[in-house]
Amino acid sequence: MGGSAEVREYVVGIGRRARAAAAALATAGTGAKNGALEGMAAALGDRAGEVIEANRADLAAAERAGVPPPVRARIALDRKAVGGICDAIRQVAALGDPVGEVLASWERPNGLAISKVRVPIGVIAMIYEARPNVTADAAALCVKSGNAVILRGGGEALRSNIAIARVMREAAAAAGLPADALQLIERPGHDAVRELLTLDSCIDLVIPRGGEALIRTVAEISSIPVIKHYKGVCHIYVDRAADPAMAEQITLNAKTQKPAVCNAAETLLVHEEIAPAFLPRAAAALAAAGVELRGDPAARAIVSGMKPAAETDWGNEFLDLILAVRVVRDLGEAIDHIARYGSQHSDAIVTGDRAAAERFLAEVDSSAVFWNASTRFNDGGEFGMGAEIGISTDRIHARGPMALPELTIYKYVVRGAGQIRGG
Amino acid sequence: MGGSAEVREYVVGIGRRARAAAAALATAGTGAKNGALEGMAAALGDRAGEVIEANRADLAAAERAGVPPPVRARIALDRKAVGGICDAIRQVAALGDPVGEVLASWERPNGLAISKVRVPIGVIAMIYEARPNVTADAAALCVKSGNAVILRGGGEALRSNIAIARVMREAAAAAGLPADALQLIERPGHDAVRELLTLDSCIDLVIPRGGEALIRTVAEISSIPVIKHYKGVCHIYVDRAADPAMAEQITLNAKTQKPAVCNAAETLLVHEEIAPAFLPRAAAALAAAGVELRGDPAARAIVSGMKPAAETDWGNEFLDLILAVRVVRDLGEAIDHIARYGSQHSDAIVTGDRAAAERFLAEVDSSAVFWNASTRFNDGGEFGMGAEIGISTDRIHARGPMALPELTIYKYVVRGAGQIRGG
Repeated sequence: MGGSAEVREYVVGIGRRARAAAAALATAGTGAKNGALEGMAAALGDRAGEVIEANRADLAAAERAGVPPPVRARIALDRKAVGGICDAIRQVAALGDPVGEVLASWERPNGLAISKVRVPIGVIAMIYEARPNVTADAAALCVKSGNAVILRGGGEALRSNIAIARVMREAAAAAGLPADALQLIERPGHDAVRELLTLDSCIDLVIPRGGEALIRTVAEISSIPVIKHYKGVCHIYVDRAADPAMAEQITLNAKTQKPAVCNAAETLLVHEEIAPAFLPRAAAALAAAGVELRGDPAARAIVSGMKPAAETDWGNEFLDLILAVRVVRDLGEAIDHIARYGSQHSDAIVTGDRAAAERFLAEVDSSAVFWNASTRFNDGGEFGMGAEIGISTDRIHARGPMALPELTIYKYVVRGAGQIRGG
Repeated sequence: MGGSAEVREYVVGIGRRARAAAAALATAGTGAKNGALEGMAAALGDRAGEVIEANRADLAAAERAGVPPPVRARIALDRKAVGGICDAIRQVAALGDPVGEVLASWERPNGLAISKVRVPIGVIAMIYEARPNVTADAAALCVKSGNAVILRGGGEALRSNIAIARVMREAAAAAGLPADALQLIERPGHDAVRELLTLDSCIDLVIPRGGEALIRTVAEISSIPVIKHYKGVCHIYVDRAADPAMAEQITLNAKTQKPAVCNAAETLLVHEEIAPAFLPRAAAALAAAGVELRGDPAARAIVSGMKPAAETDWGNEFLDLILAVRVVRDLGEAIDHIARYGSQHSDAIVTGDRAAAERFLAEVDSSAVFWNASTRFNDGGEFGMGAEIGISTDRIHARGPMALPELTIYKYVVRGAGQIRGG
C-alpha cells in the first residue's frame, strides 16, 4: 500500500471513469442495457470456474485468518450459487426499464410544455459486507437503471468480488457498454473508503449495506448523500379484536420464517383483554418453534416460566429466535411503544376491527405497515417491484424496498416557442 | 453563552419538541393546517408593528457592526414587506395538501392490497442567510406538508426572525396545532448549528439556503440527509438553426431580467455557423442592457472590443451583468462544455432543428432543460407547482423546484387477511 496521496489518486481515477461511464449509460437504450446484462449472466455461467477458484482462495485465507465459520459460510460460492447469481442478473434484464418514463406532463398558460422525465441518478457507490452475490446484484440493478456503480465489498470476499467484477466488466464491454459501468475498489483498508465517501464531484449517492456500525460510520464520514437502512426492529401488535389463530400464525411467521433478516419481528405487543386467551397458545407455538420469549411482568403473569425482558430488549434487533413480549393497555399504548422503540421499518396489527386497523396504519409511521399480514412481506419481490438493492429506513428519496425506479431521479424537460419571463 | 453541554441540551430540547410536534402534524387534517396558516397570516398582519420594531433593532445593530448596505437592504422589512409575507402564507394555505395522496395501489396474487401513500418527511431543519421572509415561507410550507421545522436564520435578522416565529407559533397554538410545529434557534454562534446537524435522532432532513460556502459546510458537517443547491451556472446554446431574434430575446431575458438569481444565464455558447450573423446583434443588445461580455478568441474575432474570457470565467456564477461567450464547433461541443462547466441547474438550446433540440434535451442532464425558452422559467411558481422552498441541484429525492410534494415521502400500507410468507 502506498501513502494517502496514492490512494486518493487511485480512488479519484475510479470516480472520474465512473462519471464518464455514467454519461454513456444515461443515454444507452434498453436493448443495449439488457444485452449487456444477458452477456454478463452468460459470461458468469461460462466462467463459473474462475469465480469459484477465487472464492476458494478467499475461503482458505479466511480460515487462516480465523474468520468464524458462519461468516465463511456466507461468502462461500459453489456452481449452484453462481447459477443463482446468473439467474438474478437475467431477472433484472427482464424487468422494465425505468429510464425515460414520463412521470407527468402539463402545459402552462404561456404555452410552455413541461415534462417530468425519469433519468438515472448517475454514479452510485455501494459499500457492503460479506456475500459476493451483492457485487453482481448491485451491478445489474445499477446498469439496468442507467447508473455507473463503484463497488466496495467486504475484505473476506475480495478475490471473489474481483473475479465477478472482471467477468461482468468484460461482458459489458463486449456488449458495447463501458466496462467502467461497474468498478470495484480492490484496495483493502479504510483509506480508500474514506476517499470514496468524500468524492462528491464524482459520486451522487452512497448505499451502504451491512451491520449498523458500518452504516453509521458511512453516514458520518460521507459528504455524499447516503440512503441507508439502520435496522429492522419490527413489531406485531395483537389487538383485542384479533383472530387468535391468525395472530398466532402471523407472529410465528414474522419471527421464525427467517429470523436473521430485517423484516422479521422482534417484539410482540398484546392487548390486555386478549392476552389471557392469546398468550398461552402463542407462547406454546413459539416455544415449539424454538423461540425464547422475554416478557414484561404482565406477560409473565400469564405465561409461567417466561424470562423477564430487560429495558434493552425493547428496540433490540435480536436477528435470532428471541422475541420480546409486552402486554399493552390499548392500541394507543401499542402505537406509542412502536414510536419509541421501533425503527420505522415494518410493523403489523392483527385485528378484526377496521377502525383500530386504520388508526394503526395511519399513526404508525414505518416504511411499511401491515394489517393482518406478516412483516416479512416488506420486500421488493413480495411487493411485486422486482429485485431490490436494499430496504430504506430513511425518510427522503425512497422508503422501504429500493428497486429500479428508486435508483432513478427525474429532470424537467421544457419545450417552448421563444417564451421569456416577464416582471 | 454557556458551554457546549448547555448548547447541546438547548438544541436537543428543540429537537425532541420538534419530533413530538411532527407526530401531531403528520395526522393533522388539511382544514386544521389551513386554519393555522390563515391564523398565522392574520396574526402577522395584526402584529406587523412588532415585527417591524424588531427589524429596526436588527438594522441598527447591523449598521453599528458595519454590515454593508446591500445586506441591510435585504433584511429590511416595512409594512408592505410584512403584507407580502402574509400573502405568501395565504397562498400556501390555498395549495392542495399533498399528505395522504395515494401514489399507487395494487393487489398481489396472494391477495395483499398494497398502497403507496404520501406522508410528511418528519422534522426538517432549514439553515439560511439574510432575508427574514424565509422564516415565514419555510414555516408555512413545512406546516402545510405536515412537517415540523427548526429554523436557523442569519444572525443579522435574528430579532426579526424571533418576532416572526413568535407570532406564527402563537397562531399555530391558537388554531390547535402544536406551537413547536415551528421553532427558531435563537442562540447565535456555530456551536448550535453543529449540534443541530448531528441530531439525526430528531431531524430527518436539512435544507440549507444561501451562498455556496454555507451549503458546502452544512453538507460536510451534517450526518443528516441534506438537499442542497450549490449554484446555478446556466447556459444558453444558440444552435446553427436558431432564429436569431428569438435567440437574442432569450439570451437577454436569461441574463438581464434578474441577474442575481440562480436560474440566470452565465454563459452563452454559439454555433460557429451562426456566430458571424448572431453575435454582433446579440452583443449590441446585451451591451445596451449593461452586460459585460467576456469572449473566447473566436467570439472576440467577430465582436471587436469584447474582453477576453479567462479559464475561470467558464463555470463562474457571476450573479451579475457579466456573460461569458464561447463559439463552439457543433452541438456536441456545446453539450460537452455544459457537462464540464455547468452545475446541472438550468440550460437552454435555441434552435429550429427538432433533432438537435431533442438531443440537447436528452443529453444535457440538468434539473431543467429548455428548448426555445429562457432558463429563468426554472421556478416552482413558473412551473405551476406553487411556492417553492428552494431549487435542488442534488440527484436524489428532488431535482429542480421543491414545492409541497417534494417535502413529503411515502409509506407502504398493506392490508391482508392473514397472509404469511412461504419458503
